[in-house]
Amino acid sequence: MKITMIGAGRVATHLVKGLHACGYKIHQVYSRNLASASELASTVNACAVNTIAQLDKNVDLVILAISDQAIEEVAHQLSLYLSDVLMVHTSGSTALNKLSICFRRGVFYPLQTFSLEKDVNWQSIPILLEANSDQDLIQLKEIARNLSNKVYCYDSAQRLSLHLAAVFACNFSNYCYDIAHQITQEKQVDFSLLHPLILETAQKATVCTPKEVQTGPAKRHDEKILQLHEHILESDLKQSEWLALYCLMSEQIKGIH
Amino acid sequence: MKITMIGAGRVATHLVKGLHACGYKIHQVYSRNLASASELASTVNACAVNTIAQLDKNVDLVILAISDQAIEEVAHQLSLYLSDVLMVHTSGSTALNKLSICFRRGVFYPLQTFSLEKDVNWQSIPILLEANSDQDLIQLKEIARNLSNKVYCYDSAQRLSLHLAAVFACNFSNYCYDIAHQITQEKQVDFSLLHPLILETAQKATVCTPKEVQTGPAKRHDEKILQLHEHILESDLKQSEWLALYCLMSEQIKGIH
Repeated sequence: MKITMIGAGRVATHLVKGLHACGYKIHQVYSRNLASASELASTVNACAVNTIAQLDKNVDLVILAISDQAIEEVAHQLSLYLSDVLMVHTSGSTALNKLSICFRRGVFYPLQTFSLEKDVNWQSIPILLEANSDQDLIQLKEIARNLSNKVYCYDSAQRLSLHLAAVFACNFSNYCYDIAHQITQEKQVDFSLLHPLILETAQKATVCTPKEVQTGPAKRHDEKILQLHEHILESDLKQSEWLALYCLMSEQIKGIH
Repeated sequence: MKITMIGAGRVATHLVKGLHACGYKIHQVYSRNLASASELASTVNACAVNTIAQLDKNVDLVILAISDQAIEEVAHQLSLYLSDVLMVHTSGSTALNKLSICFRRGVFYPLQTFSLEKDVNWQSIPILLEANSDQDLIQLKEIARNLSNKVYCYDSAQRLSLHLAAVFACNFSNYCYDIAHQITQEKQVDFSLLHPLILETAQKATVCTPKEVQTGPAKRHDEKILQLHEHILESDLKQSEWLALYCLMSEQIKGIH
C-alpha cells in the first residue's frame, strides 16, 4: 500500500512517522515549501515534491493534512490529477462534503494535539473515520487500527461537536497553563510546583464529572480572594487581558450550583 | 505529637487522613456542623467538637483548614483559648499576618485540588510553609516532609502569586473541561474520546512551555472554523456564556506570536 502525504506540518509529520512505523510505504510528501517536504520525506525515504503535477497517480491513499482553510481548494487541484484515488482530510471541523469534488473521499481525524517538540503514542489516540463508500471505510479502518486501539466511525456533525469540545478541553486549557506559566515567570516563582496540580486536575476529569469537582475561590464565592487576585492582575501585573479572562471565568464558575 | 483540625471540608479531610497515615495523632476535629466533625473524626479515632470552648489546650498544633474568609475571625476566637499553641492556616492567598492575633503562627499550604470523591497521593503534593519563628518552621518542615517529598518555604507574597497561577492552571482549566463535557453531553458524543487529549495537553505543559505548544483554530487564525464554532455555540447550543468565553479566549490566543 502506497500513501502520499499532502502537507508537512505537525499532523502530517506525526502521521507520516506513525504510518511508517506501522509498515506503510509513504511514497511522496507534498508541500508548497520544498524544504519542509524534503525534511519530512527524508525521515521515511519518501520523495519530496512541491508541485501537484509531480504527484504520482499510482498510489492507494492521499492524506490531506493541511490547514482547514486550504482543504477545499487543494482537493479541487488534486482531483484534476488523481481522480480515482481515495482522498482523506484530517480535520475535526471540516465536513466530508468539502471533498465532494473527489470521487472517493473520507476523513481520517486523529483526536490529539500534536507538537513537533514531542512524540505521541499513536496507540492511545482516538481516530475518527468517515468515508462516502463502505469499501473505502473498511480500508481506512484497517489502516487506523494498525495505528491505534481506538478507532471510531463518526459522521461530520458528530466530529464537529467533538472538535468544538476539544477546543475547550485542549486549546483553552493550554492557554490557561500559558497564563499560569507567565504569572510564575513574572513573579519569579517555580512553575514546576504547579505540575502535580495540572496533572491531577486533568486526571480527575477522566474519572469524575468536571462540574462536580470544580474548586477554587470563584466556586466558593470567596469575594475577598477574587478581589485580591483581580487587583494583582490589574495593578501589579498590568495584564488587562488576563484580568478580563479571570473575571469572565469567575463569573461563570460562580453560577455553577 | 497531638494535632487538632479546625474544619471538616475537603482540605481538612485529606489532611486528617494523610497525617493519620503518617502516624500523627489527630486529637480533635472541630466544625460548627457536629455531624461533619463526627464523620471525619470517626475515621481517625479523634473527638468531634462543635464549640471552641470544647477544644483541648494541650495540643502541639492547630490546623485551620477553613474558608479563607473565616480564617481571621476563627483565629481570633481560638487565640483566646489556645494562646500558646502553634496555629497554621492552609490557604494559598491568605497572608501569614492574617494570623497575627496568634503568638505562634504559620502556613501549611498543600498546592493541590482536593475532592472528596478522589484520594490523593500526598507524597507528590508540594507543601508551602511559612512561620513567624524558626523553631516553628522547623517543626512544620518535619511534619510536611513526612507527608510529602516536595516541601518548600515560600513567603506570603510568593505563595499568593503561585495561588493566582494555580487558579488559571487548575480551576479555569477544569471549567474548560466542564464546558467540553457539557457540549459532548448535549450533542450525545462520547466525552471519553477527549481523555487522551486532556491528559496529553496537561502532560505536555510539564515538559514544554505552554505558549510554544499552543494549537487550535485560534492559533492558526482559522477564521472559518472560529465562525463555525461560534455559530454552534450561539444558534445551536444557545450558550451565550460559552460563546463569550470562546470569543475572548480565541482573541487572546490569536494575539500570541
